[in-house]
Amino acid sequence: MAKILVTYYSQTGHTQSMAEQVMQGAEAAGARVTVSDIQHISVQDLPGYDGIIIGSPTYYGLMAGSIKELIDQSVQYHGQLAGKIGGAFASSANIGGGNETTVLSILQVMLVHGMVVQGSATGDHYGPVGINVPDERVKKQCQALGRRVAELAIKLFG
Amino acid sequence: MAKILVTYYSQTGHTQSMAEQVMQGAEAAGARVTVSDIQHISVQDLPGYDGIIIGSPTYYGLMAGSIKELIDQSVQYHGQLAGKIGGAFASSANIGGGNETTVLSILQVMLVHGMVVQGSATGDHYGPVGINVPDERVKKQCQALGRRVAELAIKLFG
Amino acid sequence: MAKILVTYYSQTGHTQSMAEQVMQGAEAAGARVTVSDIQHISVQDLPGYDGIIIGSPTYYGLMAGSIKELIDQSVQYHGQLAGKIGGAFASSANIGGGNETTVLSILQVMLVHGMVVQGSATGDHYGPVGINVPDERVKKQCQALGRRVAELAIKLFG
Amino acid sequence: MAKILVTYYSQTGHTQSMAEQVMQGAEAAGARVTVSDIQHISVQDLPGYDGIIIGSPTYYGLMAGSIKELIDQSVQYHGQLAGKIGGAFASSANIGGGNETTVLSILQVMLVHGMVVQGSATGDHYGPVGINVPDERVKKQCQALGRRVAELAIKLFG
Repeated sequence: MAKILVTYYSQTGHTQSMAEQVMQGAEAAGARVTVSDIQHISVQDLPGYDGIIIGSPTYYGLMAGSIKELIDQSVQYHGQLAGKIGGAFASSANIGGGNETTVLSILQVMLVHGMVVQGSATGDHYGPVGINVPDERVKKQCQALGRRVAELAIKLFG
Repeated sequence: MAKILVTYYSQTGHTQSMAEQVMQGAEAAGARVTVSDIQHISVQDLPGYDGIIIGSPTYYGLMAGSIKELIDQSVQYHGQLAGKIGGAFASSANIGGGNETTVLSILQVMLVHGMVVQGSATGDHYGPVGINVPDERVKKQCQALGRRVAELAIKLFG
Repeated sequence: MAKILVTYYSQTGHTQSMAEQVMQGAEAAGARVTVSDIQHISVQDLPGYDGIIIGSPTYYGLMAGSIKELIDQSVQYHGQLAGKIGGAFASSANIGGGNETTVLSILQVMLVHGMVVQGSATGDHYGPVGINVPDERVKKQCQALGRRVAELAIKLFG
Repeated sequence: MAKILVTYYSQTGHTQSMAEQVMQGAEAAGARVTVSDIQHISVQDLPGYDGIIIGSPTYYGLMAGSIKELIDQSVQYHGQLAGKIGGAFASSANIGGGNETTVLSILQVMLVHGMVVQGSATGDHYGPVGINVPDERVKKQCQALGRRVAELAIKLFG
């Protein structure tokens, strides 16, 4: 059964709320999902998952520094994440506030790890971007992300 | 008197409408502004401006191909745009639909030309992103972009 | 048998030469590969492939305008490429000349199509970047890209 | 007299070595330059400079997490850096290893701060990218970056 980690950094609770929607989507697709604040995640946990989805607030158009610190530490397991499925989402205060580039910054580090990422032909193409409190549009996008990553992980890892 | 070109590609009229707001902002700041559909622009016009602002619809998260074709032709004047001021804006159908990356794709080509670009500490940081029909938020962002580019062009080119 | 398209735009022959190495990698991995100048490709061909790999020279840090025009036309088949495997490579004149951003511009449009892309934990992480005449490093990277896309296409499409 | 800060994070010494070349270029152009390891920089120092140039190793295609942490803290002075000149450089182990995207990640945060950045029509367009020990090409690019930022800062801030 494909194992998915949904992890996030959240100060206002909006990113956490998005993470819960992502989890619902991934579970509905049949994956076993762990949701965790990134502060409770150790890099040694990462190779144990088939899919990793990371959510961040939009801090200067990129993932939060504390997430990037974890990514930098993940170099200890460099190569072991290759072929796993990745996904990303971001919350922000404004449209045009750097949310797409935050999502892409996460997808980029996943590509450097040799991971597999998939966009969406509809809606938020790179990954869900929330503006303040997640509304129905954002919840739907988050569920779609969870489902998309889970379905691909299930196809590839059973 | 600083000369600014605001040029755009528009199918639905939304990007054109944003261009007019950008023009208003640049004129209010004291620049002489030309607004033109990019289909009426020749690359040989570009070196005659102190500032160039380009607007595009969001086509696969990047500027429209027809704008990129003009950029590719501008290689004839490569080096002659160095030091000029650049700016960008994008219209799109959806939040998260690739509008920020469309703006950034335009800023990137401007950097390759050696141009000078400025972000905004407030609002749409890289440049205005419109969602469908430009609303008050978008108009304000477009005017701010015009003003920002014009003010910098006036400081540097008088 | 997984079907892969390797298509490119090439003025100097360097991008074409890279395409041939990508093809070798994909064939060695067991895929059926078509290599074609993008000028001979019609958008209606695209849905017929399981994997699509696009190579471009580095024109202002993005894919060539003529490739972007084809991508824009591909909107006719929007949604039909979702789930297919994508990959990208770029040739350039200089290190730091915009080659990584050219590769990423192609991967971005693939994500907007809902395609699946994979990075590499070693070497050229986003996709091969050639500097002038492809050397041994670049050939190896191109073969690795072809192999990577083919292996993923075979797993997903048989 | 325009005041420029060149700050960097360096583990191998390569990024530090690039910083020294950037400093030489900026000083030769007539600016007063401070070079400092980012670990000795406090965010409260930043508003005191007319230009800020940041160098990072290439960690997963983005600036190092420790630099991003400082950027995140700089939100305390958000708005106070608007209009200042920015620049970026990166060192990496490989061509195609994420160095351009590392430079761009720094320029992006500068745009979010409302800063002014300039590309180069020649050489490393977004900012210098070093591959291992800085060679003559890289030294020249670093000096050119220092000169470019200093000249623009002098024009705008005297």
